[in-house]
Amino acid sequence: MKKRYQETLEEIAKELEGVEKQGEVPSYIPELAKVDPSKFGMYLKTLEGEEYEIGDSREKFSIQSISKVLSLSMAISLIGNEVWKRVGVEPSGNPFNSIVQLEYEHGIPRNPFINAGAIVVADILVSQLQDPEAEFLEYVRGLSKNADINYNHSVSKSEKEVGYMNASLAYMMKEKGNLNNSVERVLDFYYLQCSLEMTCAELAEAFRDFGDTGDPFGHGPFTLTSSEARRVNALMLTCGFYDESGEFAFEVGLPGKSGVGGAIVALYPEKYCVSVWSPPLNKKGNSEKGMKALELLTTKIEGSIF
Amino acid sequence: MKKRYQETLEEIAKELEGVEKQGEVPSYIPELAKVDPSKFGMYLKTLEGEEYEIGDSREKFSIQSISKVLSLSMAISLIGNEVWKRVGVEPSGNPFNSIVQLEYEHGIPRNPFINAGAIVVADILVSQLQDPEAEFLEYVRGLSKNADINYNHSVSKSEKEVGYMNASLAYMMKEKGNLNNSVERVLDFYYLQCSLEMTCAELAEAFRDFGDTGDPFGHGPFTLTSSEARRVNALMLTCGFYDESGEFAFEVGLPGKSGVGGAIVALYPEKYCVSVWSPPLNKKGNSEKGMKALELLTTKIEGSIF
Amino acid sequence: MKKRYQETLEEIAKELEGVEKQGEVPSYIPELAKVDPSKFGMYLKTLEGEEYEIGDSREKFSIQSISKVLSLSMAISLIGNEVWKRVGVEPSGNPFNSIVQLEYEHGIPRNPFINAGAIVVADILVSQLQDPEAEFLEYVRGLSKNADINYNHSVSKSEKEVGYMNASLAYMMKEKGNLNNSVERVLDFYYLQCSLEMTCAELAEAFRDFGDTGDPFGHGPFTLTSSEARRVNALMLTCGFYDESGEFAFEVGLPGKSGVGGAIVALYPEKYCVSVWSPPLNKKGNSEKGMKALELLTTKIEGSIF
Amino acid sequence: MKKRYQETLEEIAKELEGVEKQGEVPSYIPELAKVDPSKFGMYLKTLEGEEYEIGDSREKFSIQSISKVLSLSMAISLIGNEVWKRVGVEPSGNPFNSIVQLEYEHGIPRNPFINAGAIVVADILVSQLQDPEAEFLEYVRGLSKNADINYNHSVSKSEKEVGYMNASLAYMMKEKGNLNNSVERVLDFYYLQCSLEMTCAELAEAFRDFGDTGDPFGHGPFTLTSSEARRVNALMLTCGFYDESGEFAFEVGLPGKSGVGGAIVALYPEKYCVSVWSPPLNKKGNSEKGMKALELLTTKIEGSIF
Repeated sequence: MKKRYQETLEEIAKELEGVEKQGEVPSYIPELAKVDPSKFGMYLKTLEGEEYEIGDSREKFSIQSISKVLSLSMAISLIGNEVWKRVGVEPSGNPFNSIVQLEYEHGIPRNPFINAGAIVVADILVSQLQDPEAEFLEYVRGLSKNADINYNHSVSKSEKEVGYMNASLAYMMKEKGNLNNSVERVLDFYYLQCSLEMTCAELAEAFRDFGDTGDPFGHGPFTLTSSEARRVNALMLTCGFYDESGEFAFEVGLPGKSGVGGAIVALYPEKYCVSVWSPPLNKKGNSEKGMKALELLTTKIEGSIF
Repeated sequence: MKKRYQETLEEIAKELEGVEKQGEVPSYIPELAKVDPSKFGMYLKTLEGEEYEIGDSREKFSIQSISKVLSLSMAISLIGNEVWKRVGVEPSGNPFNSIVQLEYEHGIPRNPFINAGAIVVADILVSQLQDPEAEFLEYVRGLSKNADINYNHSVSKSEKEVGYMNASLAYMMKEKGNLNNSVERVLDFYYLQCSLEMTCAELAEAFRDFGDTGDPFGHGPFTLTSSEARRVNALMLTCGFYDESGEFAFEVGLPGKSGVGGAIVALYPEKYCVSVWSPPLNKKGNSEKGMKALELLTTKIEGSIF
Repeated sequence: MKKRYQETLEEIAKELEGVEKQGEVPSYIPELAKVDPSKFGMYLKTLEGEEYEIGDSREKFSIQSISKVLSLSMAISLIGNEVWKRVGVEPSGNPFNSIVQLEYEHGIPRNPFINAGAIVVADILVSQLQDPEAEFLEYVRGLSKNADINYNHSVSKSEKEVGYMNASLAYMMKEKGNLNNSVERVLDFYYLQCSLEMTCAELAEAFRDFGDTGDPFGHGPFTLTSSEARRVNALMLTCGFYDESGEFAFEVGLPGKSGVGGAIVALYPEKYCVSVWSPPLNKKGNSEKGMKALELLTTKIEGSIF
Repeated sequence: MKKRYQETLEEIAKELEGVEKQGEVPSYIPELAKVDPSKFGMYLKTLEGEEYEIGDSREKFSIQSISKVLSLSMAISLIGNEVWKRVGVEPSGNPFNSIVQLEYEHGIPRNPFINAGAIVVADILVSQLQDPEAEFLEYVRGLSKNADINYNHSVSKSEKEVGYMNASLAYMMKEKGNLNNSVERVLDFYYLQCSLEMTCAELAEAFRDFGDTGDPFGHGPFTLTSSEARRVNALMLTCGFYDESGEFAFEVGLPGKSGVGGAIVALYPEKYCVSVWSPPLNKKGNSEKGMKALELLTTKIEGSIF
């Protein structure tokens, strides 16, 4: 088996040589625009603890929206089902609709993985924690079993400076009564959370326990029951890839989450967790090569959950 | 194991006594409004062929939207990936948006399980088949291994008479160039397809092969590859319950499809297929008691795919 | 004064030579596509009865949406303010929104000059009149003091055949309960009404009394009070040119109504009524040359009502 | 004539006794919520300079959105038609659509009198003027021929504190590239501009020249041509009353502008300018009693421009 996973990763890397040239590294954040577009790493860890990897799997990158799954988990561990009074569990439809839906649905974002939803989750953490920045960092380090994980304050700062759309969404939710703290405060935390830098190996480690449905998931006092972890998995499957979520479920068939830093993490419950990193993005904002790599993975090792 | 499934069905039936009184039988179709709201049936068949059932599991009802999965399968078997040029694979967001999205997205419905999408699939069958009505019926009888399945022409007729919203959607798609046949012709077939009457046992039999990923799925010349069947499963999970799809994935965690006749069919790939019938609907248009029954099922036998 | 109006029309015709080449004759209706794009006529009649004209001012064309003002007047004469329970008096925003607004606002069109609104008005006439087609024709002949006005059944037929969008809107309103007759019946009358053929001179005659605020407006039993006529004028100013209504008010400053046949009629209350015809349309669906001709008219003879 | 206008104002005041009890003083701004709801003033000045007034016509109130006409005029005087590259001249449809349209139409507000449009106009003034706050105040004082006009900094401050929706709109436009200055800077000026306090008499004086189409309109270097002033009048008619603009044109038939402070100013070109103040608002956000007073005025003195 070990051989098979490793061989598969090598085949994938080979088949996808050059694919990253089809996508584009996002240019709106100077810090992210500087990343070498040819970087490619992939890392797979089974529930039993076997590790397989290829390429730049130990290089740090900005995890961006992938952090939304971790902040959601922390929020659920703190207030449980109260989370779902302020954010939904339904896919969001297309990007065009985001602020329309928010206005129409009284400031309740459709799910915690669109920006508006993650900003509400950030508001929950700001309200619930003494020192949200420090405690969230501690939580992620715990999940990854790695103290060498940090925010990138420079990335966080430049994202906030041009984050007009998020400010627009946040003020809309403030208007509708779904933000308890000031927009400034919440966005400060939100952008810091997104600036976390991790490697493929660290990411897969942090998400691996979501697939271990026998155990509670978490770190320190912040734990989810097995049932709560499964529900987060369901959310990743239905909402993890913006308006390409249906496509990912259809083509890959695993719960997962992407970020504009070019990383994707996905998991097969009870079997393995896999991460991939390649900075150029497709038109929907997901890693061009990363999406293809995971498609190949589940094709080659019949790994869809369906 | 046999004992466990049977006991579980009995427990569920007992726990849910009276729940159907919370929902409402749809009144807009006289034929459906006449159904006894206290009917309740449930049927589970494993991949190995064991059968478990309770209540009115052998009584016929109108399968309505559940037919959309079967017409989709037939369309895929006929033209393969060409289907996806005319209908998407993304969840649809909320009902309010349906016609908005259709207009904004140039007449391409978001997925084949919203009405607009199923009407496009009906248009494909009308174009591809010599005698769509007869051949589709034959196909469903084949999947169910049961010749005693029929359309209800009276239901079909009354639905068409009040189906103004579907006519509005169909004319919009005709305007946008996504219907090749006349609106009249397509809707005639669409309403007939929805009027199919089946029992819980027949439904589960017809859907069971979707979960048998080793075999091709289908009947006669109309077969899907294992990979195509898995993708239909993914679509059921992400889009099978209108704007309650996320909720169903979150609470139940199985691919499935509901219909306004009060039935739901769901499946756990490689394990079992289950169907439930209880006519009163919740506000989202899904069987109130059926949703709860499946929630209990996956809680009691840890059956979520996540 | 006589000399001045005549000179102005001649100046306008000269300045606009060649402008019609910028627009396009609508191609979706074969009958209308055949019209000679270089046709140009203009006709102005004062309240005192003086006539000024130039070019093809005595040639028949399809009045299309201009008929909506006349059907509205007839409806008001029949049921007065009851009209406003089924259709609004607010401008409609942009075309993209039309069916959205209709759905959001429960099937009540924003105003009687968008297609949805005119279809509701047609429904009113179908309900109120014994023989709507004959009586409406008689009404228009009476207003124009001219028995030589007729429908073009061939235009009406070809418009209906490709009128999918109107059918979509009509079925939406039927769904929402704002059409009392069948969609078929109402659209038959609607398309016939739009197919009326008139000359510039006949149009200006038919609309001239809207500007005579001393007199009741109408023909036979179908009369409006002076106050009702003024309100129709206000509606023409705010809603007469689809989503270019604000632009027309801003640039021309007169109440008016355009049609895709390339005609525009406008009036200066208490002073004059003017009509212009040039088939090629601008991007908003209004006569390219006609809009410019009226802009020049009110610039040259300081004729804005503002 | 003098007698007639004065008598009419007295009749109106009498007929409308008690009407203000139907509306509500807006409660979201503490400063405005404190105003006595029974206040009522009306003032009419003819082009020849005759003055007629009744009630609290010399009492100061917050002019709020009425200031948008004055800031627009100043912007036109500074950059002419360049204004229309950044804001449209079409009515906006209903409030629900505001942020949708803004997103769909790339950050270009439909017209300068919806909040988004007025914020763009404020951005223009901030860019064009050395000291926008001082120069705008000077401009308004000049138009009103009255040095005793001032901002209310306390109103401005409390409006800004709860102005989440305006911040949401402004950040959306910043995202779309239609704000050149920072959102903070622009909103500071915008809220100050809205906080101007004037009397009915001062308002009518400031707007009277819009109706004098012989003269250029303005003060000091900030002048509009007669044609530019007429276009502002057309905009007031089509867009001056939020989504009740069509209703106002339909019922009253004069160009005008309302504000949430309860004031309305309207004018009959070449004849008179009239202002009315009564704090309680109807559901559309316009003065309940003010709307009715103007309806009565144009009914009693046949004063519609149509």
